[in-house]
Amino acid sequence: MTPVTAVDAVRRSEATLTVRRPDGSVCADTDVLVAQVRHDFAFGNIGFDFVGPAGEEQGAARENVFGGAGPEAAEQLEDLWLEVFNTATLPFYWAGFEPVEGHPDTRRLQATAAWFRDRGVSVKGHPLVWHTLAPDWLRGYSATEVEEVVRLRVRREVTAFAGLVDTWDAINEVVIMPVFANEERQNAITALCRRIGRIPTIRLAFEEARRANPGTTLVLNDFNLSTAYECLIEGVLEAGVRVDAIGLQSHMHQGYWGEERTLEVLERFARYGLPLHWTETTLVSGDLMPPEIVDLNDHQVDSWPSTPEGEERQADEVVRHYRTLLAHPSVQAVTYWGLTDRGAWLGAPAGLVRADGSPKPAYVALRGLVKGDWWLDPTRLRTDGEGRVTVAGWAGDYSVSVGDRSATWQLRPDAPTPVVTLT
Amino acid sequence: MTPVTAVDAVRRSEATLTVRRPDGSVCADTDVLVAQVRHDFAFGNIGFDFVGPAGEEQGAARENVFGGAGPEAAEQLEDLWLEVFNTATLPFYWAGFEPVEGHPDTRRLQATAAWFRDRGVSVKGHPLVWHTLAPDWLRGYSATEVEEVVRLRVRREVTAFAGLVDTWDAINEVVIMPVFANEERQNAITALCRRIGRIPTIRLAFEEARRANPGTTLVLNDFNLSTAYECLIEGVLEAGVRVDAIGLQSHMHQGYWGEERTLEVLERFARYGLPLHWTETTLVSGDLMPPEIVDLNDHQVDSWPSTPEGEERQADEVVRHYRTLLAHPSVQAVTYWGLTDRGAWLGAPAGLVRADGSPKPAYVALRGLVKGDWWLDPTRLRTDGEGRVTVAGWAGDYSVSVGDRSATWQLRPDAPTPVVTLT
Repeated sequence: MTPVTAVDAVRRSEATLTVRRPDGSVCADTDVLVAQVRHDFAFGNIGFDFVGPAGEEQGAARENVFGGAGPEAAEQLEDLWLEVFNTATLPFYWAGFEPVEGHPDTRRLQATAAWFRDRGVSVKGHPLVWHTLAPDWLRGYSATEVEEVVRLRVRREVTAFAGLVDTWDAINEVVIMPVFANEERQNAITALCRRIGRIPTIRLAFEEARRANPGTTLVLNDFNLSTAYECLIEGVLEAGVRVDAIGLQSHMHQGYWGEERTLEVLERFARYGLPLHWTETTLVSGDLMPPEIVDLNDHQVDSWPSTPEGEERQADEVVRHYRTLLAHPSVQAVTYWGLTDRGAWLGAPAGLVRADGSPKPAYVALRGLVKGDWWLDPTRLRTDGEGRVTVAGWAGDYSVSVGDRSATWQLRPDAPTPVVTLT
Repeated sequence: MTPVTAVDAVRRSEATLTVRRPDGSVCADTDVLVAQVRHDFAFGNIGFDFVGPAGEEQGAARENVFGGAGPEAAEQLEDLWLEVFNTATLPFYWAGFEPVEGHPDTRRLQATAAWFRDRGVSVKGHPLVWHTLAPDWLRGYSATEVEEVVRLRVRREVTAFAGLVDTWDAINEVVIMPVFANEERQNAITALCRRIGRIPTIRLAFEEARRANPGTTLVLNDFNLSTAYECLIEGVLEAGVRVDAIGLQSHMHQGYWGEERTLEVLERFARYGLPLHWTETTLVSGDLMPPEIVDLNDHQVDSWPSTPEGEERQADEVVRHYRTLLAHPSVQAVTYWGLTDRGAWLGAPAGLVRADGSPKPAYVALRGLVKGDWWLDPTRLRTDGEGRVTVAGWAGDYSVSVGDRSATWQLRPDAPTPVVTLT
């Protein structure tokens, strides 16, 4: 197990905070209360469960085509979600987002994104281009038209969600995209990628998204973490496509990888000097999926229960996985794929919360890291004669207060001497 | 099984040959004897067995570090080799070619290449850059020096063998190159590739070789035929590196792939519009290597005999494999990896000839294709009133003779009306 200190060595830094009174004088030799408010590190989870309820005035009658727990469960999940996570992945699967051409689900998703934003949560859109869940109606276009329709889709979504969605999976699973064959009739995105090539398809997604919102963070995302993805990344970078982060999926329905394999993956993908986003992390609290399954979607079971032993194992593995990932300085985001077993992908007991809404041990354990080991609870400190106090903690937003006056400030390794004025 | 006609449909064409007498008049209404002399299609095999004997005046005392059957066997193998193959792969494994820095085995390899050339055989060099068999002394250089030493090596070999070696594996197995770990101490080429990236390493090899001999055919070669190689190829082509042919290895020590998988590989790699060279083909005539072996080099056995049943199976599979490959128009070369079991790679009974020099059924079967089904034996034809005769056959060199006068000509689909003058 990676010791806790390995994570802290990478994530913790010290700041010397100078506290001033409203009149500008320093708060010398004073007891102050310092507390962390938010992590800079992106602790993510999907926000699919909240698309219905959060956007209900816009689309109450609409089926929740993205999956998720449904409106009745969302209320009890809200606090559990917000207690641990600060970054929500919202679904922009094209076939679900625009089932009828020309009728995208924009307003409902905007409302959902705003709902998260209003609660201090950053929002990520997933994904702009993907062969799976490409709309059937796209097949009605000619090969050259498809490319233009895809460009329009990318521009439309990124433009409509500027200010609400900060990060996009610009394109998903390109390694397999042009040779994807697990479908009865080839989808139009696979045909496009096969015709123009992987790198031009990636360039299309990134360039359109970048043009529509230069400030957004654009992720190249894949589940294939073999040398194939390395080769793809190297080709994309050589071709001059600007990638903001490398997205690595880790759906572990077939079992936890262990530290050694995880470190090996980290090491291979960190060498491009780009931030690593662990975009889709899953660990089940029940039986493991048989190892011979290649496409996880092929595993269909009637019932896949969460078990007491499975829940203990999952809790242990969640802690080990997060500790391993966060001890690597390239990792900037880890997104767990689903809060609850209710409506979970593949029916797997992959949630951190049981279908009945009660937290599993993994939830408690992860909260213990994010809001415990890795968090600064309200702490009384004393300033020196020049109003300075040293605070050690993770990068993020903090508060400082003296009596009923307070201020917020940022702890960042690259700005170690912040100054705040109480108001 | 691919029907014979599928191969012929791709490979055979018709030429209308006009035959003239030495005085320029047409050979009208005359019996002529037409015969094929050489295939344009590259039927290749390794020529390692002949490095010793062919180059003996230059380096008789030198150990045959490249493997191979040894001098005493070469004589009996010569006719068997030349009867079926027209393209020889010679070994330029750096550690063997230049075991002591500054003392490359140039003259012996030049003599061997000339020996083949004098027998009408095209020569291919394998490989210019590869992490396996990188010389130990290369580790003595700094990271930046290694790149320059590699460049010098590429330039030196391509320059010294211009006119003798027409085709080079410019670089070998780049998919695994930067992450190759099956060695106690990391070799210098892996370190280079990891430092500068796969595509810059490929560019280095191709650009130096191209500059040294613009007329040479440069092959990108790999055993990894997964999507990883596709991604690598796409990146290389996007980066503007000119690749003349895609090299595909098919060492089938673990069993024949079958037509379906082979066609799937052909289809995936043909879509780049480049010629496909099947550079290393192996089918064993004994037990199969266990499927769990990942790096074939890890399989070490004391004895690996050729068996009667294995030989029948091998013959069947050789025919099926060649028929499948040659029925695809993108395939321009197929190189079998070894004529004899004597000194064969891994000790495998992969040869077409037994260790005692007797041909296996696979040899007979392959000869039956190359010099039988796919060959035009001397055939009597009659010219029309304008000295024309229609010849159907595979692209290649042909002879035409009338009495004791003869001429050679080429049958090529893109030049269907050749004219020859008998001499």
